[in-house]
Amino acid sequence: MSVDFNTVAKEFCTFYYQQFDSDRTQLGNLYRDQSMLTFETSQLQGAKNIVEKLVELPFQKVAHRISTLDAQPGSPSGDILVMVTGELLIDEEQNAQRYSQVFHLIPDGNSYYVFNDIFRLNYS
Amino acid sequence: MSVDFNTVAKEFCTFYYQQFDSDRTQLGNLYRDQSMLTFETSQLQGAKNIVEKLVELPFQKVAHRISTLDAQPGSPSGDILVMVTGELLIDEEQNAQRYSQVFHLIPDGNSYYVFNDIFRLNYS
Repeated sequence: MSVDFNTVAKEFCTFYYQQFDSDRTQLGNLYRDQSMLTFETSQLQGAKNIVEKLVELPFQKVAHRISTLDAQPGSPSGDILVMVTGELLIDEEQNAQRYSQVFHLIPDGNSYYVFNDIFRLNYS
Repeated sequence: MSVDFNTVAKEFCTFYYQQFDSDRTQLGNLYRDQSMLTFETSQLQGAKNIVEKLVELPFQKVAHRISTLDAQPGSPSGDILVMVTGELLIDEEQNAQRYSQVFHLIPDGNSYYVFNDIFRLNYS
């Protein structure tokens, strides 16, 4: 039975944002040494550097809300590409900020890790 | 000398949007049979189906403006992943619509084709 990439993508993003919003120090398990993160204008490589960057972001409370989530198979070898657009609520701010994010997921045993991660706030 | 993925990504997107905005019937050369397009809620596979979808979009005049463009190597074999956020001006409308788009580019000889293409308007 082939893996349903839509289901994997939705489950991954749900887990990722729940973990981000509750305790982002634990996100390192989802990245590897070769993983890359572009967060706004910062570029980082490797699970350790990526988690350091995410942890030092200057907010205490954060909540992601997914607006759209679209997935495609990224290659015949089981990769999955996901694009999310959503809203970010930070600390006590009343107005959500819109963002766009891409994850390129690569299978690893029974699970997936993030190879590419690109995040941008959508300024209007 | 290794290819500079940032340069390739910028040149590709510049060319793609110029072609889209001037004559989108010619975009088929940038896709292959295995290529996939998610355009809003529509999913298509193959250069022919993708170009048909793009051509039948209900506007005559269109202009893309790139706001942000971020690229990463998508694999050791030379793939490139690009996320664009930008603005779309359609026909005689005064207000641009914001969009997010991902391209997964795969090398093919001296050029690249689009394997994955995901496009979403950002509703606010």
